[in-house]
Amino acid sequence: MQDTKAKRVEPRLPRGMRDILPQKMIQREYVIATIRRAFEEFGFEPLQTPALELRETLMGKYGPDAEKLIYEAGHVGGKEQLALRYDLSVPLARVVAQYPDLVKPLKRYQIAPVWRAERPQKGRYREFYQCDADCVGPASMLADAEILSLTYEVLSRLGFRQFTILLNDRKLLNGIGRYAGVDDEQRAGLYRSIDKLDKVGLPGVEEELRKNAIPDGAIQRMLELLQVQGDNRAILARLRVVLAGSPDALEGLSELEEIVGYLEALGIPERFARVSPAMVRGLEYYTGPVFETVVEEPKIGSITGGGRYDKMIGMFTGRSLPATGTTIGIERIIDVMEELGMFPPGVGKTVTQVLVTRFNPDLVVDSLKAAAALRAAGLNAELYFEDESLARQVRYADRRGIPYVAILGPDEVAAGRITLRDLAGGRQVTVARDAAPAQLETWRHEA
Amino acid sequence: MQDTKAKRVEPRLPRGMRDILPQKMIQREYVIATIRRAFEEFGFEPLQTPALELRETLMGKYGPDAEKLIYEAGHVGGKEQLALRYDLSVPLARVVAQYPDLVKPLKRYQIAPVWRAERPQKGRYREFYQCDADCVGPASMLADAEILSLTYEVLSRLGFRQFTILLNDRKLLNGIGRYAGVDDEQRAGLYRSIDKLDKVGLPGVEEELRKNAIPDGAIQRMLELLQVQGDNRAILARLRVVLAGSPDALEGLSELEEIVGYLEALGIPERFARVSPAMVRGLEYYTGPVFETVVEEPKIGSITGGGRYDKMIGMFTGRSLPATGTTIGIERIIDVMEELGMFPPGVGKTVTQVLVTRFNPDLVVDSLKAAAALRAAGLNAELYFEDESLARQVRYADRRGIPYVAILGPDEVAAGRITLRDLAGGRQVTVARDAAPAQLETWRHEA
Repeated sequence: MQDTKAKRVEPRLPRGMRDILPQKMIQREYVIATIRRAFEEFGFEPLQTPALELRETLMGKYGPDAEKLIYEAGHVGGKEQLALRYDLSVPLARVVAQYPDLVKPLKRYQIAPVWRAERPQKGRYREFYQCDADCVGPASMLADAEILSLTYEVLSRLGFRQFTILLNDRKLLNGIGRYAGVDDEQRAGLYRSIDKLDKVGLPGVEEELRKNAIPDGAIQRMLELLQVQGDNRAILARLRVVLAGSPDALEGLSELEEIVGYLEALGIPERFARVSPAMVRGLEYYTGPVFETVVEEPKIGSITGGGRYDKMIGMFTGRSLPATGTTIGIERIIDVMEELGMFPPGVGKTVTQVLVTRFNPDLVVDSLKAAAALRAAGLNAELYFEDESLARQVRYADRRGIPYVAILGPDEVAAGRITLRDLAGGRQVTVARDAAPAQLETWRHEA
Repeated sequence: MQDTKAKRVEPRLPRGMRDILPQKMIQREYVIATIRRAFEEFGFEPLQTPALELRETLMGKYGPDAEKLIYEAGHVGGKEQLALRYDLSVPLARVVAQYPDLVKPLKRYQIAPVWRAERPQKGRYREFYQCDADCVGPASMLADAEILSLTYEVLSRLGFRQFTILLNDRKLLNGIGRYAGVDDEQRAGLYRSIDKLDKVGLPGVEEELRKNAIPDGAIQRMLELLQVQGDNRAILARLRVVLAGSPDALEGLSELEEIVGYLEALGIPERFARVSPAMVRGLEYYTGPVFETVVEEPKIGSITGGGRYDKMIGMFTGRSLPATGTTIGIERIIDVMEELGMFPPGVGKTVTQVLVTRFNPDLVVDSLKAAAALRAAGLNAELYFEDESLARQVRYADRRGIPYVAILGPDEVAAGRITLRDLAGGRQVTVARDAAPAQLETWRHEA
C-alpha cells in the first residue's frame, strides 16, 4: 500500500452491497453455526467452490432473465471469461461431474455468498448467502424425508414455532395437468397460475387459468383438486381416487405417501409438514418431491425451498444422477429472527464476556496476566488498552454491552485478588484471582 | 435452470482456482474454528464486507504492480466500476471511515477470500483466504503485545512447536538508516537489502548494499547492528547504546522494550518471540512495531505478518487513527499442517461418527428413528438410504472413514436393541437402544 500516492476517496459501497457490522455479524454467525451443526449431525459435509466460475459453466442454466443478473469478471491480460456464481447448485453439479470418483452418496453442504445484480430493495442485496444441503446419488425417498427432517430440526433449533413445510411432487403436478386436460405446452402457465393460490385465492386462480386460455372443464377439474381438504393422509387418499387413471400422478402420490410415513415415524407434528398440491416451486429442474417452508407471521414468503432434481447433474455429464436437497434462506431467516426478537439473550451485543480494566501503568501487567488467565479458563476477555479513568473504562464496557468488568487496583494486586462487577446486576465481589472464572460462570448462568 | 436449453459443457475450473472437497474442507474448518475461537477469546469481533468493492476504493492503495492483479467486475447495464477485494485491510479502512460512530477500540476479525490474478503455482491460488485481526483506535503498545500473544496462542493451539515470531519496529529501522548515513530516498533499497539477510547471509547483504550505492562507512555501521547477538533484552540494550543519538531509533526501542516486557509477563518463552532488527516486512504502510512468524521446518517463509499502521485509515478520512493487527496465513498453515501430519486424529476423514444401516424395507423406519435418536444425543449420524446388503453398507462406511456402524436387524428391533460395530477396533456389542450414544462415546474416548 502506498499512502503517499493514494488519492483520498469517499468511503462508500457499491449499489446493493452492504457491510455487516459486528453486532449483526454475531447474530449471523449464531444462525450459521446452528445450521452447520445440524447439517453435520445429519452427515452432510462441507464443500468449497471458488466464487469465480468460467462463464460457460453458468450460462444456459438459469434462463435469459436470470443470466442478465450474472456478474462477469476479468483481469488485465486474462484470457478466460469469468463470472461470479449465481447459486450453489450449478457449482455442485460441476463438481459432481468433474470428480467422478467422489464416493456416493455425496452429502455436501455449502454456506457461501452468491451474486445477482437484482434491483436492490429492502432486505434484498446483490451479494447474499445461500446455505444448501444436497444429497447426490440416492434415488430413495428416505433422502428426501431426511432433507425435510433436517429442515424441521434447523428451524426448531433457531426458535421457529409457527412454520409449515409444504410438500408436493412434480410428478403429481404433471398428472394433475394431464388430468385437467392441459397440454404439455400450457403446463408452465398452469403451474404459475396454481402457484398464486396463496396470494389470490381460488377465484383468483380461476381467473388466471381463464386468462391462460385453459378450457373451462379443465379449470373445474383443477379447482376440485386444489380444494381437497383434510390431513395429509386424507388429501393423498382423495387424490389417489381422483387421479387413479394417471400413472404420473400415482407415482408422485406414492413418493409423497412414503415421505409422509417417514415424517410420521419421526414424530414431526403434521402442522409443521403439510401436503400441498398447489405448491409449485418455480425452478423447472425439479423432477420429484418439492418442498418449501412458509412462515405466517411475519408474512415474508418462503424461508426454505428445495426438492429432487434427478437430471441437473446430467447437464455436465450427460448422464443423470439422482439428487435432492434444500436451500435454507438464511438472509430471510436472520431478518425474521431480528424482527421477532428471536435471538437468545446475549447473542448480538458483543462476543466479549468480561472487560479487564487497568488501574495505572504500574499495574497494567497484572491486568494483562488476569486477561490471559480468564481466556485460559475459556472466557472471552478484552483488556482495556488506554490509561484512562476506571469510570471511563466501565462506561466503555457498558456502551459495548460487555456484561462484566474485572478490576485490579493496588489493594487487589497486593492481596492476589480481583474485583468483579456485574454491570446489569449492579453487584460486585472481590475474590481470589483463580476463583474469578468460576464466579463469572455462576453469574452467567444466573443471567 | 432450464436443462432442455443447456448446452453440455466440460466441467472445469478457471485457471488458478480450486475446489476444496470435503476431506480437505473438514481440515480447513478445523483450522478456521480454532483461529476464530482464539480471536473471540481476545475480544475480536466478526465483520463482513462485500467481495465486490468500488474500483476507486481499491485503486491507488497497493501500487501498480499489485493493482494489475485486481479482478474487475460488472453486469449488464451496470454503471459502477467494481472490483473484487485484494485484501481485507483496505475494506477495513473503508469501514472505519464510513461509520465514524463505531465504538473504538474497534477490534474486528475477518476470515474471508480475496482474489489476485497472480501466476498460479504450487500452493498459490487466485482465490485464497485471509484471516485478519486488527485493533483500531489504541496507540498503546499493549494492543501490539496482545496481537503477538494472540498469534502465539493460535499457533500453539494448532500444534506448532517450532516457530519464531520476529519483532521489529519501523521507527528503529528508520533510525538505523539515518545512523548509517543513508538518505531518505535510498531507504527503500536499504530495507530490501536488509530483508534478504535470512536468505543471503551477511556477505550477501553487504554486496547488496554496495550494489545499491550505499557508502562503505554506512555499510560497516549497518553490519555491526545486524550482528548484534544475545537475548531480546541484550539486543535492545546494545542498540540503545549504539543508536543513542537517534530520536527515531530510541522511540522504536522504547516501543519494543515495552512489548518485550509484556511478553515476558505473559510467560511467552523467548525462543518463540525474538527481536530481529533485520526483519523488515514489505508493506510500506507500517509505522511502528512489525511482526512476522517464521517456521523453520518445513522452510515455507512467514505464516503470520502484521504490525502497526497508524496512517492507513487516513487514506479515506484524511485523519490518521492508530491501528495494529495481524494476518494469519491460513493457506500456508493448512499446507504445513497437512505436510507434517499435524491434524488431530479424526479431523479430515468425515464429519460422520456413525453410519446407521438399514436391514430391509420393513425395518427402515426403525433405522430412521435410531439415526434421529443418535443425533438428538449430539452424534453425527448418517442413515444409509438404499436397500442394499449389510456388507455393502459396511464397506461404504469403511471407504468413507466412518468409524462406527449401527445395525438394526429383526432380532434387535424385536428386542428394542441395537448392534454397534467399531470398524477400526473390530469389535461389536448389542445394547439397549438408548444406551447406544453412551457406548459410542466410550469407544470414541478410547480411540
